[in-house]
Amino acid sequence: MKIDHISLKYETGLPLKILDQTRIPHHEDWVECLTLDEMVDAIKKLKVRGAPLIGLSANFYLASIADKGLGIDYLMKASKALEESRPTAVNLIHYMRKFRELLSKMESQSWVENWAFEQWEADRLASEKMGTLGATLVKPGANLLTHCNTGGLAAAGNGTAFSVLKKSHDLFGDISVYVDETRPLLQGGRLTTWELKKQGVPFKLITDNMAASLMSMGKVDAVFVGADRIAANGDAANKIGTYGLAVLCKYHNIPFYIVAPEKTIDPELESGSGIPIEQRNRDEVRGWNENLWAPDCETYNPAFDVTPANLITAWVTEKGIMRDENIKQGVFKNLKI
Amino acid sequence: MKIDHISLKYETGLPLKILDQTRIPHHEDWVECLTLDEMVDAIKKLKVRGAPLIGLSANFYLASIADKGLGIDYLMKASKALEESRPTAVNLIHYMRKFRELLSKMESQSWVENWAFEQWEADRLASEKMGTLGATLVKPGANLLTHCNTGGLAAAGNGTAFSVLKKSHDLFGDISVYVDETRPLLQGGRLTTWELKKQGVPFKLITDNMAASLMSMGKVDAVFVGADRIAANGDAANKIGTYGLAVLCKYHNIPFYIVAPEKTIDPELESGSGIPIEQRNRDEVRGWNENLWAPDCETYNPAFDVTPANLITAWVTEKGIMRDENIKQGVFKNLKI
Repeated sequence: MKIDHISLKYETGLPLKILDQTRIPHHEDWVECLTLDEMVDAIKKLKVRGAPLIGLSANFYLASIADKGLGIDYLMKASKALEESRPTAVNLIHYMRKFRELLSKMESQSWVENWAFEQWEADRLASEKMGTLGATLVKPGANLLTHCNTGGLAAAGNGTAFSVLKKSHDLFGDISVYVDETRPLLQGGRLTTWELKKQGVPFKLITDNMAASLMSMGKVDAVFVGADRIAANGDAANKIGTYGLAVLCKYHNIPFYIVAPEKTIDPELESGSGIPIEQRNRDEVRGWNENLWAPDCETYNPAFDVTPANLITAWVTEKGIMRDENIKQGVFKNLKI
Repeated sequence: MKIDHISLKYETGLPLKILDQTRIPHHEDWVECLTLDEMVDAIKKLKVRGAPLIGLSANFYLASIADKGLGIDYLMKASKALEESRPTAVNLIHYMRKFRELLSKMESQSWVENWAFEQWEADRLASEKMGTLGATLVKPGANLLTHCNTGGLAAAGNGTAFSVLKKSHDLFGDISVYVDETRPLLQGGRLTTWELKKQGVPFKLITDNMAASLMSMGKVDAVFVGADRIAANGDAANKIGTYGLAVLCKYHNIPFYIVAPEKTIDPELESGSGIPIEQRNRDEVRGWNENLWAPDCETYNPAFDVTPANLITAWVTEKGIMRDENIKQGVFKNLKI
């Protein structure tokens, strides 16, 4: 069996290969994840990133070591280390818990690879579905704005919010996209731009602080973003800056959509206040890579923020376009992941 | 006569020297402005920047060439070229028009240097006054947020909004400041951090998209920013990102203050919609200096945005703290600059 995706390559018997996203767009370096330390490091350093893709790549890593005779104890340990590599996205947690549940029940580890492929395929189909559903929210000629990266560099297929942009482009031909550069790690400026170019979708890159001004001039018709974890009440954690965009949308009366597969939902979590927010290294704010333009100083560097449900117009999952009334009826709370 | 300021040095008979702000904080390079081209280039490239400082440095440049026997025609031409070097800030326009008015009346050019010093001294005193007035709006222990750079690198004395931060720190000792890095040219991350460190005011640097999240957690008590041009109705153009901050303040019920000397007011301009907004090079958005992290792509790069008066809690000038009712009574409209 084989996966040959824009951001991940897997083939039975070979090590997992991931595209080093810290080097995009100028370098397309594929790195092999051989040891557990390498895999955990790749996640922590954002060589592989995006809530769905982190989980899916962890699954394939486990598949790549499952038949090496390392023993159940090691696989349990590896799965826990992967789960703890980043705290906010819940997809990884869901996958790793499921993995350990299955591991404790099964006699051999021959199931792992099949299971990893099944999860991949489910995510790919979810991406397709979210694209199709999300595009029904878009009008021809629309100007859409997105934040961070939510494409094939963040998930299977065309990803989440990115899948909506791509599908809308395929359907109407005349949509255009504003891409927030998404400081500090520039997932918009480096990754979304690279993917949109590959897919032939027209776009303009902006700094994060330009979105408000565009909105005030009527140049943004809708905002589509992904999520790293959605609580039972619809509150959604996503890349830092998302909450501000949602407030700006409310003020300018612009629809604000979260696009995410059900694996991003945490039904056990009542509200967004319970979502752990990863704090990252101060130097990410002081500059970019080795280029530290700010002096030696304190910074504040949360990787995510939480957007409350009341600022979200709708949640697009592979199951449908969920509105406030669906959330209140328990569509997320009663979900079985 | 002599000025020895953090960002500008002038002495009778010597060329004007400016601190090259594109090189701050890691390099403190002073450049001499000998030719008109050099001076215009320094303004266009933001070696010298900040609405008041651009105007004041243009004044001193003219003073430095006034006694060189270049003739009135050349001084007229020089003043026009300086006025056109950047379009948004109005202080430069006010100074250059006044300069040409005086030039056409006077017999010799011996007045120019005195006049340049008078403008400098007036701006320095305005800075003092704005600091003292603005600090009355601050409570002990407050967390203040600022955008761009508004200190001695942008004006005489301690500048505009920066002067309020410094005065509040001097008075209370326990205020703290969040500094927006202010993409794309990082005037917050490079310049305000450098100045706050020099002045011993505690601060934390954030990326622009983090302000909303801090506000939602109750960690911002007030926002103080400068302005590049204020219309008669109170609408204020300032560094891109200011408008978004003002909307976020409105949503979170946080006071939003503009601090600027009267020279920043354009009484002839009815509203902010008439303020010309400078569009800058796309590569400023694609990266930082030579480090272009984004692929070859279109960008949108306005240097400023306009905040409507209804989002501004008060305007602090050297004459007082102006509220909506003062503006409606014509305090800006009837101003003689």
